[in-house]
Amino acid sequence: MKINALVAHDANAPLASAPITLRSVQHQDVKIEVLYCGVCHSDLHMARNEWAVSRYPLVPGHEIVGKVVEVGAGVTRFSTGQIVGVGVMVDSCRECNFCQAQEEQYCEQDFTATYNGIDRYTGQSTWGGYAQNVIVDQDFVISVPDNLPLAGVAPLLCAGVTVWSPLRHFTVKAGDRVGVVGLGGLGHMAVKLASAMGAEVTLFTTSPQKGADAYRLGAKQVVVSTDSEQMAACHASQDIIIDCVAAAHDLDPYLAALKTNGRLVLVGIPETSHPSPQITPMVFRRLSISGSSIGSIKETQEMLDFCGQHSITSDIELLPGEEIENAFRRMLKGDVKYRFVIDMHATHW
Amino acid sequence: MKINALVAHDANAPLASAPITLRSVQHQDVKIEVLYCGVCHSDLHMARNEWAVSRYPLVPGHEIVGKVVEVGAGVTRFSTGQIVGVGVMVDSCRECNFCQAQEEQYCEQDFTATYNGIDRYTGQSTWGGYAQNVIVDQDFVISVPDNLPLAGVAPLLCAGVTVWSPLRHFTVKAGDRVGVVGLGGLGHMAVKLASAMGAEVTLFTTSPQKGADAYRLGAKQVVVSTDSEQMAACHASQDIIIDCVAAAHDLDPYLAALKTNGRLVLVGIPETSHPSPQITPMVFRRLSISGSSIGSIKETQEMLDFCGQHSITSDIELLPGEEIENAFRRMLKGDVKYRFVIDMHATHW
Ligand SMILES: [Zn+2]
Ligand SMILES: [Zn+2]
Ligand SMILES: [Zn+2]
Ligand SMILES: [Zn+2]
Repeated sequence: MKINALVAHDANAPLASAPITLRSVQHQDVKIEVLYCGVCHSDLHMARNEWAVSRYPLVPGHEIVGKVVEVGAGVTRFSTGQIVGVGVMVDSCRECNFCQAQEEQYCEQDFTATYNGIDRYTGQSTWGGYAQNVIVDQDFVISVPDNLPLAGVAPLLCAGVTVWSPLRHFTVKAGDRVGVVGLGGLGHMAVKLASAMGAEVTLFTTSPQKGADAYRLGAKQVVVSTDSEQMAACHASQDIIIDCVAAAHDLDPYLAALKTNGRLVLVGIPETSHPSPQITPMVFRRLSISGSSIGSIKETQEMLDFCGQHSITSDIELLPGEEIENAFRRMLKGDVKYRFVIDMHATHW
Repeated sequence: MKINALVAHDANAPLASAPITLRSVQHQDVKIEVLYCGVCHSDLHMARNEWAVSRYPLVPGHEIVGKVVEVGAGVTRFSTGQIVGVGVMVDSCRECNFCQAQEEQYCEQDFTATYNGIDRYTGQSTWGGYAQNVIVDQDFVISVPDNLPLAGVAPLLCAGVTVWSPLRHFTVKAGDRVGVVGLGGLGHMAVKLASAMGAEVTLFTTSPQKGADAYRLGAKQVVVSTDSEQMAACHASQDIIIDCVAAAHDLDPYLAALKTNGRLVLVGIPETSHPSPQITPMVFRRLSISGSSIGSIKETQEMLDFCGQHSITSDIELLPGEEIENAFRRMLKGDVKYRFVIDMHATHW
């Protein structure tokens, strides 16, 4: 079936509207009319082939909210008209220990990425949510609570669950002191989610002017990380710190800010290495540095349900598809509060 | 009370026999006749002031096995004639969260080190086990099982518990795949202890000639870490790796050897930084790097009891105190299997 999408034809061409052909609806498939799709940093990296793995034509987008418009005969969990979400994964091996444990993000055979993946059924590239439609196996479709403004739900599907997963996996609970490094797409969701969990959130930022926003989003404390006095004052104060900054940076000040037994979680991958962290405080205070990658389908559903209960969505700027290159440019400058979302119905194809 | 000890008078002087004065036996104190004292790398660093914190005169030694020869009136847990051990700590604040949780090694007021610490009672430097006697509060004295050869018990008090603590804290269990990096004083204990726990142990070493010994000590597999084919073959195979190498080295091959969710535990502190670890595998496989420092009094007792049940001691080379400088020289070359232990009764004071 032919639909319109925002297509990158090569690493240098701007995204432009073009027709693509989706697979037909299979037994277990849900066909979704995309309403909104968040704009993730990965989308830009992949469109430009900055990770040297892009296959063209490429359609980005893995923060998808839409309406079910058709279901395969084997679909039991969704019906037409329902509002659903799709995140970073659309399939996995289903058989390995991690898939069996509902942690498909760590599938030993690698999950199928929502775009630029290899469709396990057709063998062709997968195409993402910068499009009128996506067709996804029901096991990788998420129910969206009906009380949330849908455009703000889209970024939850990647940015939201990427910080939700470590908060849950590393068992953050009410009263914990949770640090968040960086107030961008991920960081602002970490502040909202951790605060709603009852944690006492400290935002670490290099931009003092972000303080007011951080408090509005739920932070109890804002620390300017370039101010060594402020950093010294929060020595050994945090149970866990979710570091949302992908650019290479010094981890030592955040290790110093952790309580004994504390954990620094990295959810971003820097292009060049971080300076090597000091081992002394790690040993003497049994600190850990951990990575974490997106989240499982189960975690994504739990997060969306939690967001429904707590009326949490992403702070967004809505734009039509034809503005995507402008959005990329502004995103590179950090000029977005806090996520761009494409409005498919406002897009001229 | 005056006793003889091996004393460093300054950073450049060799250790030599000299008299020192211990505090008198207090209400809760146990006076111990030292029988054996293990030679830890820290002893050399501190004797030479390599960490720039040494106070002289200095008496090293925190792997102490001895016989109780006198007890204070308030001592309930020990009586004269009993064989006991003393490790790296002889006191702590007793009040902080960590002391209350029986994790004195992370005391927020800093534990009192067995030597070169500040005695919380006298305010003077503490002196270690390279001596005829030590006097220690009963709460920091460990019972030694009566079935073990005592000279080989001494290194358990520091080297043993330093690897025992992370094995237990990070919940290694029978069937787990445990990697050990480096077959020295700590590494050979990690191989023995993890094997006795029922784990399947892989030794990573740069020295192929250590293979036979590793198998004898309980390893199921030996991997020459400089052999990239051997390292590639054990990709994603280990649940946890205890890295016992203090010298700066590349951590990435060990991260690669961890299963998803695996943990690399560093128990040594390098003089210069390790090369910065790659973040990509940490994120995509949710790996952790953790530090760990010695172990608590409770863990030390549990370890000694476990060693009694499993007839585990350290492999040692016994020497009289006057050979200590020679031992230091050989230790620097890694020429010891696997720990020097001073025989106090064979020492000419
Ligand atoms: Zn994303
Ligand atoms: Zn799988
Ligand atoms: Zn030691
Ligand atoms: Zn304490």
